[in-house]
Amino acid sequence: MNHPARETGAPAREKPIGVFDSGIGGLTVVRALRELLPNETIFYLGDTARVPYGGKSAATVERYSLEIAALLLEENCKTIVVACNTASALALPKLEETAPVPVIGVIQPGAEAAVAATRNRHIGVIGTRATIKSGAYERAILALDPAVRVSARACPLFVPLIEEGWLESEITDRVVRQYLDPLVRDGIDTLVLGCTHYPLLREAIGRYLGDAVQLVDSAQNCATAVRQLLDAEDLRAASVTAGELSVALTDPPDAFLDVARAALRLEIGTVQLRQVIHPAKS
Amino acid sequence: MNHPARETGAPAREKPIGVFDSGIGGLTVVRALRELLPNETIFYLGDTARVPYGGKSAATVERYSLEIAALLLEENCKTIVVACNTASALALPKLEETAPVPVIGVIQPGAEAAVAATRNRHIGVIGTRATIKSGAYERAILALDPAVRVSARACPLFVPLIEEGWLESEITDRVVRQYLDPLVRDGIDTLVLGCTHYPLLREAIGRYLGDAVQLVDSAQNCATAVRQLLDAEDLRAASVTAGELSVALTDPPDAFLDVARAALRLEIGTVQLRQVIHPAKS
Repeated sequence: MNHPARETGAPAREKPIGVFDSGIGGLTVVRALRELLPNETIFYLGDTARVPYGGKSAATVERYSLEIAALLLEENCKTIVVACNTASALALPKLEETAPVPVIGVIQPGAEAAVAATRNRHIGVIGTRATIKSGAYERAILALDPAVRVSARACPLFVPLIEEGWLESEITDRVVRQYLDPLVRDGIDTLVLGCTHYPLLREAIGRYLGDAVQLVDSAQNCATAVRQLLDAEDLRAASVTAGELSVALTDPPDAFLDVARAALRLEIGTVQLRQVIHPAKS
Repeated sequence: MNHPARETGAPAREKPIGVFDSGIGGLTVVRALRELLPNETIFYLGDTARVPYGGKSAATVERYSLEIAALLLEENCKTIVVACNTASALALPKLEETAPVPVIGVIQPGAEAAVAATRNRHIGVIGTRATIKSGAYERAILALDPAVRVSARACPLFVPLIEEGWLESEITDRVVRQYLDPLVRDGIDTLVLGCTHYPLLREAIGRYLGDAVQLVDSAQNCATAVRQLLDAEDLRAASVTAGELSVALTDPPDAFLDVARAALRLEIGTVQLRQVIHPAKS
C-alpha cells in the first residue's frame, strides 16, 4: 500500500475522512461526525455485498477490512474510521499495522466513556456475536480499570429488527427485554451499545431500561475521538463551509437505507456502487 | 469451465451430488436428499463467509453462485442442486447456461407442488427480500396455471430467529403472526416455504396456521425433483451402501450448525473450510 498523501502532494486538510462499516449501520457514526465536525468531507463505504460481519470469523472480517482500507486509501482519505464494532474488535490491530494513515475504531472510545460513566463499576456490553466473542470491550475496559466488572451479551436479532424498520414495535420491545433482562438483573448501571446499528434502537432500549442504566453510544464517542485525533495530528479541514458526504456501497441500496436516512436525518446524495477486490489483485 | 467428467473419465454414477446454499439452511435439502436417496454421495458447500444472500442484489447473488458452481465442478459433482431460494430465483438461468452438468433449483419443484396442492387457487409465498422481489415463484406458478392468484411476502426476521435457535418462543410466534396474518386474511389455502431455512420453523408456522393452510416445503420437493432428474439422466449411484456426506463452509461453523444438526438429525463429520474465489482468478 502506498501513502496517498505522498503520491498527490495535496495538503492533508483537503482530504476526506474515510469511514467504513459492514453495511448501513455505520451511518450513525457519520451522523455524529457531521454534527461534531461539519466542515469535514467524509467518504463512507458500506460493504453491503457481504453484510453482516457480526456472525463471521476473525480471519474473514480482517480480510474484508483490509480490502476496504485499500479502497479508502485510493480515495485519498486522511484517516480511517472503523465505524463497525465487529471490524474494530477483530481487525483494528492489523489495520493499524498496515495503513499509512491514522486508524480509529469504536471500541476504545466506547470503553473510555463507559468507565467514566459507571458508578457501581458494573458495565454491560451488547453487540453482534463476533464482537462479544472477541472480548474486545472487556479487554479495553479492564485495561482502563481492572476493578470494573463486565457483563456481555450478543444480541443477533437487533440488527435484522432495525433493518426491518421495526423501531417501535411490541415484538422489538420483547426482544429487548429477552436480551437485556439478564444484564439488568445482574446489576449493571451502564450499558455500551456495542454495534453501530444500535443507536437506532435507543428509544426501545431506553423504554425498557428507564433511568436506572446509562447508555453509552459508541457512534457518539467515536466521533469525539475522531475530533481529538484530527486536532492532535493537525489534520482538521481548513474549510469554513460545510464538508461533503459521499456514500458508496458494494451492493445497491435497499429499503434500509431509507430507514437510516429518515431516522438519522442525513442528507445523502447519489449513492455510488463500488466493488471491493483483494488488494493483491486490484 | 471444463466438464470434470471428461477430464477424469470416471463413471458419472461415482460422482457426488453438489449442493450449495448461502449458508447452513440448505442442509434441510440435504436432509431430504439423504432420506430419499440414501446411496448418493453429497458434497455440500455453504457460503457462510458471505451469508445471507437474501438481502443482496441479483448481480451479486449471480456472481457468488457462479463462483460456487466452479468449486463444485472442481469437486467432480455430477449435478448441481441450488439449495437456496434466493440463488434459485436470481442465478438459475445463468448457472444452467454455463454449467456442463444438470442444474436444479428449489423454485420450480415448489411451484409445482403448490399448484398441485391448492384447492381455491390462492397460493401464498414467503421468502427472503431478494426471493420475493424477484417474483420468481409468481412466474413459475402462473406458467403452470395462469388462473392461480399468488400473495407473496418477504419475512426477513425468520432466518435470524432460526439462527438464534428460537424455534419455540413466544417472540417467534408473534413474528409468525405479524408476517402471515395478511396472507391468511387474504384467503390463501396453500403456503410455499420459499426459503430453505423455513422448514425449521415448520412447527411454529403450523401452530399459527392450523389445518386451514397446507404447507409446501421447498426442501422436500427439491429432493423429489433431484431423484427424477437422476433417473431421467441415468445418473443414480450404483452403490448399495450409504453414500457419504461432505460439508464445506467458507467461514468456520458457528452455533447455528449445532442448531441445524440437532433439528435435522444429520450426521455431519469434520467440516471443511474452503475459500471461494472468482473463477477468472482461480
